[in-house]
Amino acid sequence: MNVFAVPGLPEVRPGDDLAALVEARADLRDDDVLLVASTVVSKAEGRRADLEEFPAGPRAKELAERLEAISGEQKDPRFAQAVLEESTEIIMEAPFLLTATKFGHVGVNAGIDRSNVGDGGADLLLLPERPSESADRIRENLESDPAVVVTDTSGRPFRHGQRGVAIGWSGIPASRDWRGETDRDGHELEVTVEAVVDELAAAANLVTGEGDDGLPVAVVRDWEFGNHEGSDNLYRDVDGDFVRQALRGWEFARD
Amino acid sequence: MNVFAVPGLPEVRPGDDLAALVEARADLRDDDVLLVASTVVSKAEGRRADLEEFPAGPRAKELAERLEAISGEQKDPRFAQAVLEESTEIIMEAPFLLTATKFGHVGVNAGIDRSNVGDGGADLLLLPERPSESADRIRENLESDPAVVVTDTSGRPFRHGQRGVAIGWSGIPASRDWRGETDRDGHELEVTVEAVVDELAAAANLVTGEGDDGLPVAVVRDWEFGNHEGSDNLYRDVDGDFVRQALRGWEFARD
Repeated sequence: MNVFAVPGLPEVRPGDDLAALVEARADLRDDDVLLVASTVVSKAEGRRADLEEFPAGPRAKELAERLEAISGEQKDPRFAQAVLEESTEIIMEAPFLLTATKFGHVGVNAGIDRSNVGDGGADLLLLPERPSESADRIRENLESDPAVVVTDTSGRPFRHGQRGVAIGWSGIPASRDWRGETDRDGHELEVTVEAVVDELAAAANLVTGEGDDGLPVAVVRDWEFGNHEGSDNLYRDVDGDFVRQALRGWEFARD
Repeated sequence: MNVFAVPGLPEVRPGDDLAALVEARADLRDDDVLLVASTVVSKAEGRRADLEEFPAGPRAKELAERLEAISGEQKDPRFAQAVLEESTEIIMEAPFLLTATKFGHVGVNAGIDRSNVGDGGADLLLLPERPSESADRIRENLESDPAVVVTDTSGRPFRHGQRGVAIGWSGIPASRDWRGETDRDGHELEVTVEAVVDELAAAANLVTGEGDDGLPVAVVRDWEFGNHEGSDNLYRDVDGDFVRQALRGWEFARD
């Protein structure tokens, strides 16, 4: 399996054809996986926004005041309003906003980015509205037919640090299913579902970087999904997500 | 970056020299990262165990009874005893046991494996006692000097499916730190700490597989950590882990 960043992508602007920008810089193959950072997908889709587009309602003011009291830093209630508008549920409101986005991803601040916005005066970069549809569109516009994964980076419980995750995918199932398969001693496997799109996103993040030389597009080549059942059910329902249930009932308190 | 599985590893037995087994099958380089599944590390370290080594105390019996009532399946209290003995904290006791291992990793059943145990009649495969020390030892026994990462697979909140994670590492920091670095527009980066050992483990898991043809060792070649600060602080303290705090106070209840 080979993983490499696509070099030389220009600053992406609203309406840009990402497929064309990538194909001008990489010879893609039908069995590649193309991994595109959500930041450039959002930029191409015009998902930049200004704080003034989000006049804060009472709930946003309340959230911002609480975060301000906890952090001792000024918090803009318009940012909290933007998070509310991008979310279907606030899972945790302190010491930071953890929410479920409309498409199912759980992330801090609904994944709204205040860095990497680029020129143009916009303050915020929202996640793509429906990242799997974004992946479909990129794929349709390519001459070749690789799988396409839209990636983000995200923290997690129990472990420090962020790692790449998938938030949208096309031309590949999200997971491969080893259920009913056995190890070489004939024991049924305990690991049953492998979230391959997340593992591909993690691999891509190792080569794309974040900084000055940030390269937002990577290719995974010579990797095979293999002969397994696939599933697109990546985001847990609340019913089966005990952590989400526990966080709903939990209240942050400072010592 | 190139990722490949090391082929042809035999069934690993207690006392086997993993370094020699790997070097007989792969030309390792000093700038490689060698990823070794915890299953084979445990086997080499004699971490197979029999259920009868864990006579169940009252707490284990109580845990097993509760899990039995919830699942409708028979649960062996000796297994719960083994989980207790491998853990420093039971974070969640129903509908499954989520615990913190002695070395800091949070996982279901303290990472004890009942598949993949191989011949020899043992029922259980415990995780290595101190996986970063295991990684040190493998590295010391190699002729070459790659980084070594001991991997496992693990589920996670919010998202279905498992993915590769690191539980021990040597010759590489767990994370690279982008703090204070800026993107190409001069904005300070929001992503500050990248858990590279977990991303490397995820990449390895894409090529090693789980089943009949499971290949427990992989190599990542031509990848650079780059010019960043590093950190070995991968496991969160309870103080900064809000999910762990929330789960402690949460009680599973069936509808």
